[in-house]
Amino acid sequence: MVIIMSPQATEEQIQAVVDKITEHKLEPHRSTGRSRTVIGVIGTEIDVDPRVFEMMAGVAEVIRITEPYKLASRAFRPEPTVVRVGNVAFGSEQVVVMAGPCSVESPEQIESIAAHVAGAGAAVLRGGAFKPRTNPYSFQGLGEEGLRLLRDAADAHGLLIVTEVVEPGQIDLVSEYADILQLGARNMHNFAFLRELGRTRRPVLLKRGFSAKIDEWLQAAEYVLSGGNEQVILCERGIRTFENHTRNTMDISAIPVVHRLSHLPVIADPSHATGRREHVLPMARAAMAAGADGLMIEVHHDPDRSVSDGSQSLGFGQFDVLMGELRRLAPVLGRTL
Amino acid sequence: MVIIMSPQATEEQIQAVVDKITEHKLEPHRSTGRSRTVIGVIGTEIDVDPRVFEMMAGVAEVIRITEPYKLASRAFRPEPTVVRVGNVAFGSEQVVVMAGPCSVESPEQIESIAAHVAGAGAAVLRGGAFKPRTNPYSFQGLGEEGLRLLRDAADAHGLLIVTEVVEPGQIDLVSEYADILQLGARNMHNFAFLRELGRTRRPVLLKRGFSAKIDEWLQAAEYVLSGGNEQVILCERGIRTFENHTRNTMDISAIPVVHRLSHLPVIADPSHATGRREHVLPMARAAMAAGADGLMIEVHHDPDRSVSDGSQSLGFGQFDVLMGELRRLAPVLGRTL
Amino acid sequence: MVIIMSPQATEEQIQAVVDKITEHKLEPHRSTGRSRTVIGVIGTEIDVDPRVFEMMAGVAEVIRITEPYKLASRAFRPEPTVVRVGNVAFGSEQVVVMAGPCSVESPEQIESIAAHVAGAGAAVLRGGAFKPRTNPYSFQGLGEEGLRLLRDAADAHGLLIVTEVVEPGQIDLVSEYADILQLGARNMHNFAFLRELGRTRRPVLLKRGFSAKIDEWLQAAEYVLSGGNEQVILCERGIRTFENHTRNTMDISAIPVVHRLSHLPVIADPSHATGRREHVLPMARAAMAAGADGLMIEVHHDPDRSVSDGSQSLGFGQFDVLMGELRRLAPVLGRTL
Amino acid sequence: MVIIMSPQATEEQIQAVVDKITEHKLEPHRSTGRSRTVIGVIGTEIDVDPRVFEMMAGVAEVIRITEPYKLASRAFRPEPTVVRVGNVAFGSEQVVVMAGPCSVESPEQIESIAAHVAGAGAAVLRGGAFKPRTNPYSFQGLGEEGLRLLRDAADAHGLLIVTEVVEPGQIDLVSEYADILQLGARNMHNFAFLRELGRTRRPVLLKRGFSAKIDEWLQAAEYVLSGGNEQVILCERGIRTFENHTRNTMDISAIPVVHRLSHLPVIADPSHATGRREHVLPMARAAMAAGADGLMIEVHHDPDRSVSDGSQSLGFGQFDVLMGELRRLAPVLGRTL
Repeated sequence: MVIIMSPQATEEQIQAVVDKITEHKLEPHRSTGRSRTVIGVIGTEIDVDPRVFEMMAGVAEVIRITEPYKLASRAFRPEPTVVRVGNVAFGSEQVVVMAGPCSVESPEQIESIAAHVAGAGAAVLRGGAFKPRTNPYSFQGLGEEGLRLLRDAADAHGLLIVTEVVEPGQIDLVSEYADILQLGARNMHNFAFLRELGRTRRPVLLKRGFSAKIDEWLQAAEYVLSGGNEQVILCERGIRTFENHTRNTMDISAIPVVHRLSHLPVIADPSHATGRREHVLPMARAAMAAGADGLMIEVHHDPDRSVSDGSQSLGFGQFDVLMGELRRLAPVLGRTL
Repeated sequence: MVIIMSPQATEEQIQAVVDKITEHKLEPHRSTGRSRTVIGVIGTEIDVDPRVFEMMAGVAEVIRITEPYKLASRAFRPEPTVVRVGNVAFGSEQVVVMAGPCSVESPEQIESIAAHVAGAGAAVLRGGAFKPRTNPYSFQGLGEEGLRLLRDAADAHGLLIVTEVVEPGQIDLVSEYADILQLGARNMHNFAFLRELGRTRRPVLLKRGFSAKIDEWLQAAEYVLSGGNEQVILCERGIRTFENHTRNTMDISAIPVVHRLSHLPVIADPSHATGRREHVLPMARAAMAAGADGLMIEVHHDPDRSVSDGSQSLGFGQFDVLMGELRRLAPVLGRTL
Repeated sequence: MVIIMSPQATEEQIQAVVDKITEHKLEPHRSTGRSRTVIGVIGTEIDVDPRVFEMMAGVAEVIRITEPYKLASRAFRPEPTVVRVGNVAFGSEQVVVMAGPCSVESPEQIESIAAHVAGAGAAVLRGGAFKPRTNPYSFQGLGEEGLRLLRDAADAHGLLIVTEVVEPGQIDLVSEYADILQLGARNMHNFAFLRELGRTRRPVLLKRGFSAKIDEWLQAAEYVLSGGNEQVILCERGIRTFENHTRNTMDISAIPVVHRLSHLPVIADPSHATGRREHVLPMARAAMAAGADGLMIEVHHDPDRSVSDGSQSLGFGQFDVLMGELRRLAPVLGRTL
Repeated sequence: MVIIMSPQATEEQIQAVVDKITEHKLEPHRSTGRSRTVIGVIGTEIDVDPRVFEMMAGVAEVIRITEPYKLASRAFRPEPTVVRVGNVAFGSEQVVVMAGPCSVESPEQIESIAAHVAGAGAAVLRGGAFKPRTNPYSFQGLGEEGLRLLRDAADAHGLLIVTEVVEPGQIDLVSEYADILQLGARNMHNFAFLRELGRTRRPVLLKRGFSAKIDEWLQAAEYVLSGGNEQVILCERGIRTFENHTRNTMDISAIPVVHRLSHLPVIADPSHATGRREHVLPMARAAMAAGADGLMIEVHHDPDRSVSDGSQSLGFGQFDVLMGELRRLAPVLGRTL
């Protein structure tokens, strides 16, 4: 932390800040120049709220210089964390492909999609049983019945399951069926929920909030890690900007930034990020080229409907093309699929 | 809803869209021009997911023309909703001032602040007992003990209480002590939580998510209203932008926009919006001039600390100045304090 | 400036940074803690590009602590600058109202509008003769003929003129007719243009770029001031955000922020900020309540057309209502109109 | 264009809108439903300002359904435009690499860099002679001398030159030395400048404004194209968002979006987008994987300085690594380098 005193700060005010730093078991380093004093604060500042100093008389500004998280940081664990589930390993050389429909709709739908994506090389089946909907009148999912259908379809084709948990009370239920628990972007700031996920021993796929800074996303991961659950997989899914040709702006640079700041694996979801089927393929390639440890792709079962504009799900044929391209890219990037 | 067909759409594709509209009990109005066909959809489209049409072959774009909420809309209820709690009335001529500390810290602190803000004319005491913290290692509040202290201090000075509920499981507990339940900005997209709040009969202060569009904020209100709780008070508290001289950018224009779109009362929180004490006074005046039905102001008990830069709480003297200015503004704007 | 060394920085790298600071006639203040070294840099850092240090080996981050402008800062000139033009004084107690159409269209139009706004109490006539259009095929304005019409109408009613200069080559021409030269939001980052405006002796109304941080806006002012033209009036006109119920998000807090950082007067343009007529009145009141030194309002001559939604110009009746409200607000805020 | 009438619109107001549409030689298609009327407008709406209708009584909203540009659209020219300069072809199978320093500093510097980047496989030398600086006191470039040095270095190593033109008055001068004229992000909204570039016959590299929507960027291209200059190369260089681990957020999805909307080639500048050397390599790979037709990379001549954090230029060794990786990626993506 660096504390910048205002040019008008008195000697007493400066001394009060120095005393407060010592009181918090941190080391003050004072530099007094012609126009103002700057106080460097050295120590494990993660436990101290900078607002303690911001509120003091004579303080102009407080600047953090260490990250606001510890367990999630690369400084804490220099080697990448590998999250192993069944036969897949997020954070290894393998690029894990997760695919499936937005929502589980019927036994036939999920079985047909599971069969196809397994055949094309996906390792994990995605699909929503509980749907958090912006509109209270929209379809809210099949619930536990959806989870059961997902499990049956996955087992029939040797796939793992990732599915969203919509409220903390569902964690136990969803854990009975799913291999990976997904926390949705809208819940990324829900600290009570994060704490509960920290108590489970299921891997957590933590989607970035659509307006979350990377530091906030890693702080959300810190909540889960600090509860004792070390199996956190981060997922970039687009941020809210002024651009509207895509639903969100996929922040591909978040992938190398996270790899630099943290040891956790990070995957990408080009379907939700772009919201448009025709951009999923180039953005999946881009995410992989930027170093993503996995991809989450929406695949739709009804090929007649998927030739149109406007939605984000790939048809079976389009998914096959995508898998073919990723398979050619992998060795060039030193990865496997 | 208006469905724009792509220039390459076939007659069959257009007919399929028209059929689907009819199937949903809506009226299609087809316009065919030189280069493309546009289909107007008339009816109560709130129940229909536009994605149903976006996914159809030949559809280029689907544009909503009615709001994605009903109970919260002014079309549904043309007269303003007045939320009455004790002797205050949000949405009436009265501008309700809510004031108090960020967190309840001790009996002496909350008693001293309650005494002061009541004397200066505030009607509601604010203060956090459970704190949702971005950083898992930060102080998380006094819990139920904080609620008790808040109630005692409020009762001693004839104040009402507004305080944040951090998770759905706390609703009953907090309702035992508080008059108004505050839903924090980070939980605005938490639909399960909103549904639970719809089941209580306590008024809900619904803070705008820091990245929520006004339509999303009103949809969150719709969740509460659709559960049967009609006492929703909206609260603008700043949105995330690129500007960083203020913590968030206070979207003052949200006040007249909400008043136009909805019948619900809307208040403003200049303390959290700006994050800096010195901007609270001008922004409180501005919010009131724009038509805010109330103001939420952070007031700090320790006047020695409040002469400094950097934090957002007003000292007692500063709060008195603010109340004096608002009191002079009120009659000019046709309001009372 | 504060230079944060990386934890791995060698003693030689630290020494190289210290030497470079001295070489630039600045004072280094070194603080070495357990995990890293922080070097405070004291002096007139405005002349030194922080990138000089960012590029050095071992440097993790460089943080500026003084503003990136000098002449525009309140530290440089503690008293407010008052820009006097004819009988108006921007930055004084007076709130200067500027009103008129978006574009000058015909002699009858501008004469009728000038007559009305002068009668209602406006001091300055606004109106575009050259229009910078996003679309190359749109109407680009009447040109010099428009300037002449503007001058005639203004003179007939005792008004001053503010009008936009679209390219540097027009400065002399526009200066022959106009009292205040307006630089449009899209040109705020056009440094060559700013430099040319610094050479004139006409007051400059400097609109904030729709994506400009306040610091960048003040740096733009610095360009004009550093050319010797001290008559700069800043104008907040909305910033680009994700919200789309208003064309831009009017950053009302920019008004108190600018007043704190700078001595220059700052006005507001609620017409362009909101883009919707019905929000102009509440936002004009809000801007004035936040301390704006003036207001720029679009007024349209054709009352039959102005009862509708969708555009941003007020009709004559609406403008009269607005002036009435501002006139009642002024004394409460210690201002005159 | 689709014109949505308000529910209160009278029959006369609807008729007035229909008449106005016909007056502009467009076809109205009226749909009247239970609650409101929607009027589809068919024709070449690019020439008509939607504000003409927005201002009319009874109109609630006007929605454009065609792009606000014509010459730049893929509808106008379905085949990709290939911009040929010397032996390079933007928009062909070739991915054109442009590399060099931020600014030309000295004969030795530019010669050494030109030699290296040519050897590593770059086709175009970049480097600034005129620097548009946010800060009026910063180094503003070597001017014409810089252009001369650039030309000499490029010629010595068989490279083409791209360099920024800072004001319209410099176009002729810069054209004497440079092969491609770069328009900087800050000037993208400078319509007078765009018009001048439309009159030259040099290819123009049009950087996206840091807050420009893709539609605005393509409208800027339309300005140049409509002047008769068909050689426009678009360049994505990051947009302004709330995220601050990178200087801007590189909008990789803009690459497939532009390829879908327009026939113009689009390249990417990961150096300016990320602002941090360590992210240039993964983001260059990502841009290429997303379909970029070229890359612009900052390369710095002094390898001792380039091992540090904080700046965006690659050292020679790092550039060699990047070129090696791109060379391996190219055939997998069906491109050549």
